[in-house]
Amino acid sequence: MENVEKHRCFGGEQFRFKHQSASLKCEMHFSVYMPPAANNAPVPLIYWLSGLTCNDQNFVAKAGAQQFAAQHGIAIIAPDTSPRGEAVPDDSEGAFDFGLGAGFYLNATQAPWSEHYNMYDYIVSELPQVLRQLDLPLQLDCAAISGHSMGGHGALSIGLKNPDKFRSISAFAPIVAPSQCPWGEKAFSAYLGKDRETWSQYDSCLLLEKARHLPTLVDQGTDDDFLDVQLRTPLLRDAAEQFSYPMSIRMQPGYDHSYFFVASFIAEHIQFHAKHLF
Amino acid sequence: MENVEKHRCFGGEQFRFKHQSASLKCEMHFSVYMPPAANNAPVPLIYWLSGLTCNDQNFVAKAGAQQFAAQHGIAIIAPDTSPRGEAVPDDSEGAFDFGLGAGFYLNATQAPWSEHYNMYDYIVSELPQVLRQLDLPLQLDCAAISGHSMGGHGALSIGLKNPDKFRSISAFAPIVAPSQCPWGEKAFSAYLGKDRETWSQYDSCLLLEKARHLPTLVDQGTDDDFLDVQLRTPLLRDAAEQFSYPMSIRMQPGYDHSYFFVASFIAEHIQFHAKHLF
Repeated sequence: MENVEKHRCFGGEQFRFKHQSASLKCEMHFSVYMPPAANNAPVPLIYWLSGLTCNDQNFVAKAGAQQFAAQHGIAIIAPDTSPRGEAVPDDSEGAFDFGLGAGFYLNATQAPWSEHYNMYDYIVSELPQVLRQLDLPLQLDCAAISGHSMGGHGALSIGLKNPDKFRSISAFAPIVAPSQCPWGEKAFSAYLGKDRETWSQYDSCLLLEKARHLPTLVDQGTDDDFLDVQLRTPLLRDAAEQFSYPMSIRMQPGYDHSYFFVASFIAEHIQFHAKHLF
Repeated sequence: MENVEKHRCFGGEQFRFKHQSASLKCEMHFSVYMPPAANNAPVPLIYWLSGLTCNDQNFVAKAGAQQFAAQHGIAIIAPDTSPRGEAVPDDSEGAFDFGLGAGFYLNATQAPWSEHYNMYDYIVSELPQVLRQLDLPLQLDCAAISGHSMGGHGALSIGLKNPDKFRSISAFAPIVAPSQCPWGEKAFSAYLGKDRETWSQYDSCLLLEKARHLPTLVDQGTDDDFLDVQLRTPLLRDAAEQFSYPMSIRMQPGYDHSYFFVASFIAEHIQFHAKHLF
């Protein structure tokens, strides 16, 4: 474990760490923001899962979340979006929506992906253990989960599958039904194989049927170019209604898919999680 | 003039424009944030000048300024840091501190730099005219100027030389005395020639002697790796005292030279300018 960056930020510290991951079998980076309140007592945390093409640093640099994490006294943990390194197989044409930077927060079962592409285990099991080893003042049993786009899918699906591990869930412009959109179909076919039955364990709209209810907030921009074909927010609204899962889904007029959208509403998401973390 | 990007952000719009610059003789990009208040009436503006290696987008993506610009009803204009394009000469070894990305906000007098490297004229004269042509609801006669590092030098020197054009000045980690630091000496020698007399027109510590007083705020991190050799904040403090120029210079404990530092204090800078713009 190596601390490769440290910056004072809103009175707290923005860290970046490097470590060898057992579940991904490669070297990984993740970022941690510790608010000033952590100087006095352990703080709760929000896991942030990023979208396609991102690593652990996009959210840290662009979302402006540290300001609100500092205000509420919450840490933010931002992992990478896929296994990394030369030994890790990538899309044969280097596509942005599959392979490196596109781990889809699942455990792959198909060769050659299954050796490294185990982001589900990494986020749910390994990362909390790694954080425990860091010896930072974190309340590891008091966590929320959030994310953007592919990371919104990750936050919803991981949160719904692990109601004992998270107090609340939120997502910005999530891929709500990977089984029913081109990005998800491409990735799930390769990582999980053609049998769609196996896909359902990672499809938020399907997971809603049996999920224990957690406080859940979703924001989606109406001018997001990916809304109609890839993100398909209406399917989440329908599923939440069908399975009587209470959820706040807000359409934000004029906002697109960029981090300008995330930055505009991150304060409200952190406030939402703070209500359930304290 | 072409609008190449537009994103809804904190209820306003983050634009990016492309145009042919007369003073720089090349195609340039600049970014403009228009706050929601601009829907009702023209708004004042802050020019933001970025530092070495940056273009017009670093501040826009990383500083989180739009939130506060929206709250106060102020536009933010972020130009690039040098002329750009294949026809523009660059440092022979592609150094980060000279040539492209390092225009130092002056008018070069030496070949081959003098044809394109006229960032002073671009910021002071051309950009306001270009903004007028844009037909956005801007109060162009009600402006402040701010910047970071090389852009902090730009904000201070341009502000001090143009008290009729700006209501207030602020800077983050500015190069306060380019005549007395390696970055400045390298750039000024090449752009302006060896005669140090000609350098004084762009050296903030020297400009303080005869400058009309404008409200001025400077923030500097104590853990900034460039503080001792390049930025030299104590020289500004000494000059301000020597020439009785009232100025708030704040040393911020533990902060470094990154945008995490800028983000941490941009709210206070925008609030400072708002006091003088309204």
